[in-house]
Amino acid sequence: MPILQNISILYTCRDEGGQPDIHPIENAAIAWVDDKIEWVGKKSELPEKYQSAETFDAGGKIVIPGLVDCHTHLCFGGWRADEFEMRIQGRSYLEIAKAGGGILSTVKATRKASEDELFEKAAGLLDEIHRQGVTAIECKSGYGLSLDDELKQLRVYRRLKKESPVHIATTFLGAHTFPPEYKENRQGYIDLIINEMIPAVAEENLAEFCDIFVEESAFTIDEARTIFEAGKKHGLTPKLHADQLSSGGGAELAAEVGAVSADHLEQISDEGIRQMSEKGVIGVTLPLASLYTQQPYLNCRKLVNGGVEVAVATDFNPGSAPTFDLSLAMMLTCNHGRLTPAEVLKGATIYAAKAINRDKTLGSIVPGKSADFLIIDAENVNEWLYHYRGSRMTFGFLKGKRFN
Amino acid sequence: MPILQNISILYTCRDEGGQPDIHPIENAAIAWVDDKIEWVGKKSELPEKYQSAETFDAGGKIVIPGLVDCHTHLCFGGWRADEFEMRIQGRSYLEIAKAGGGILSTVKATRKASEDELFEKAAGLLDEIHRQGVTAIECKSGYGLSLDDELKQLRVYRRLKKESPVHIATTFLGAHTFPPEYKENRQGYIDLIINEMIPAVAEENLAEFCDIFVEESAFTIDEARTIFEAGKKHGLTPKLHADQLSSGGGAELAAEVGAVSADHLEQISDEGIRQMSEKGVIGVTLPLASLYTQQPYLNCRKLVNGGVEVAVATDFNPGSAPTFDLSLAMMLTCNHGRLTPAEVLKGATIYAAKAINRDKTLGSIVPGKSADFLIIDAENVNEWLYHYRGSRMTFGFLKGKRFN
Repeated sequence: MPILQNISILYTCRDEGGQPDIHPIENAAIAWVDDKIEWVGKKSELPEKYQSAETFDAGGKIVIPGLVDCHTHLCFGGWRADEFEMRIQGRSYLEIAKAGGGILSTVKATRKASEDELFEKAAGLLDEIHRQGVTAIECKSGYGLSLDDELKQLRVYRRLKKESPVHIATTFLGAHTFPPEYKENRQGYIDLIINEMIPAVAEENLAEFCDIFVEESAFTIDEARTIFEAGKKHGLTPKLHADQLSSGGGAELAAEVGAVSADHLEQISDEGIRQMSEKGVIGVTLPLASLYTQQPYLNCRKLVNGGVEVAVATDFNPGSAPTFDLSLAMMLTCNHGRLTPAEVLKGATIYAAKAINRDKTLGSIVPGKSADFLIIDAENVNEWLYHYRGSRMTFGFLKGKRFN
Repeated sequence: MPILQNISILYTCRDEGGQPDIHPIENAAIAWVDDKIEWVGKKSELPEKYQSAETFDAGGKIVIPGLVDCHTHLCFGGWRADEFEMRIQGRSYLEIAKAGGGILSTVKATRKASEDELFEKAAGLLDEIHRQGVTAIECKSGYGLSLDDELKQLRVYRRLKKESPVHIATTFLGAHTFPPEYKENRQGYIDLIINEMIPAVAEENLAEFCDIFVEESAFTIDEARTIFEAGKKHGLTPKLHADQLSSGGGAELAAEVGAVSADHLEQISDEGIRQMSEKGVIGVTLPLASLYTQQPYLNCRKLVNGGVEVAVATDFNPGSAPTFDLSLAMMLTCNHGRLTPAEVLKGATIYAAKAINRDKTLGSIVPGKSADFLIIDAENVNEWLYHYRGSRMTFGFLKGKRFN
């Protein structure tokens, strides 16, 4: 029955009071039993029964919930560093594709890799991500684009769930793009997703969510609607890549199909905001993708003012967001997304947990939830995200066990 | 007579071939004596006499010159984290100033602090900066704005030069803004700079450069010209904060007065580019200031195409750039500044050394220069800045001595 004390400010990030209210407690303490939080409050009010418990010292630093990265493409073959240089040089997508770049080069490398190879790589990355303070992560397929290769990616995540302490939520993203062999046969690929992939994913219980890249260059609103319906029949909850490059009604579709989140949203319409707010769809901002693709950043203030709860994630992937630094995504969301540090903290904890249906068990420091929290070497949440220097985590706890 | 070997690629960053040419050597080795590089080349060509030397192993990683941060405001009192939150909330400069924020709040805190207090704080920050791979740094005054307080800041840098191994170049920036007591008496403050501050700085040999914030809200072109002339008479080389918020002829003034660099330049005119190129003035990009002030990023490609050599620096200061992460500034210069990783590397090494008149002794890995180089855990320069995760330095050498 350990306790953590000597906490200057504990930000509980309870799901009350809206985006800016992170519910601070000064001079706080936390007590937990096994992997669950049992008591949180002022140290001076710590009940007698915890007084003789095993004691950890936060060193007068601040404490936050374990960070939740609610949008990643963690498992992939290869990297695309040379494409990065070509993009900066102003080479076109066609030129880059001809030189072996673009998303289809990642599909090729992912298909070529064995499940073991993909597992080793993803496990190494996840370990680094965890050491920066991420205690829960969402992971998508979408670089296989064939029955076997989509299942291969999802099985990598199933192995990670067994072998890593990090909480993992898995998402089927067969509708990421059209694979080369179906380039001239869109309906053929959609039939494959609906009739073979989704049933197989459900059969092996490999995913909780069905995500679709809804965009002019990828899947239309109508195509997405059909795929989501098939997913829902098999118990997969909708999530969307929406309104990234054009305002195409993605946010409205998210509200219509009951998606748990709509992600990207740089071009969201006012009507989209209204409908997401009404249906409680979480808006996920992915500023690292704006940074690496030189696209406009999402003005998150507009969403928050419109009643949408905003989560912050990395979008980690080898093309448009090749860094897994969630603290950097958070700092960018302050500067370019116009959310305050407190609002951003809520976005990377409880609202991110909501975006992956884990808000009943994760994302805030309240009794009954998983004992996941970080000791951050900062004076307060403003000072932390203002004076950016990586995660600044001194150490953390995941499921009640100390790490770092 | 130590050597470093097992280097997959050594980027020498010699000052030849323009911005993109970083002069790579595969399977390289370096030999040095005391603090000076003696030999650089392919390991297979290492002369016999170095074969029995003390050997360091780069572990098959890449090696780059020690990084040079050629624009910082390292010494200051206080921080301004709460102002960060207020800016995001859309509060005006007037409101922020009324609430005790803005540059004058840093002036107040810097005046209030003793030289010892400022030294302790700056030394701690410099140590962290060094551990990220910076081996040379430029440091400005400009938060004293009185004779005594400007000298106090510069004496802190003199002490750092003695106590830190990092190469330090110091800059007098009395003309940073007008102090409150001269708010209604511009000429009075300019007279103070010219007649008292500059002679005193020169007398104690406290600075090499004279920098001026040339901007509508700060010093005019004519005022700056007069101050630069006074500085030059006392041996101070001009540097400028120019064309940050408006295209006000700052770049042209830099060319006219023979400045070693012009910094910021987000609003530079085509004529300014032409004149800087003609006179060999280094353009210093400061993307972290754009990030934190939500101003447009400098399109560095325009400068490079116009024949200007571009250096990359942090602008580290407690207001507009409160992070000292030079690797992040470099990655931002790739994505938002449109320079390739190779061009950016040259900008943070040899061209940054040029911006502080140290290119004869620092900034590239060539015989005769200071033995300053870093072992970076990356496949190549593209992969390093594409897959951003902090400095990625494994260890480094400064003046021939290993650190980290």
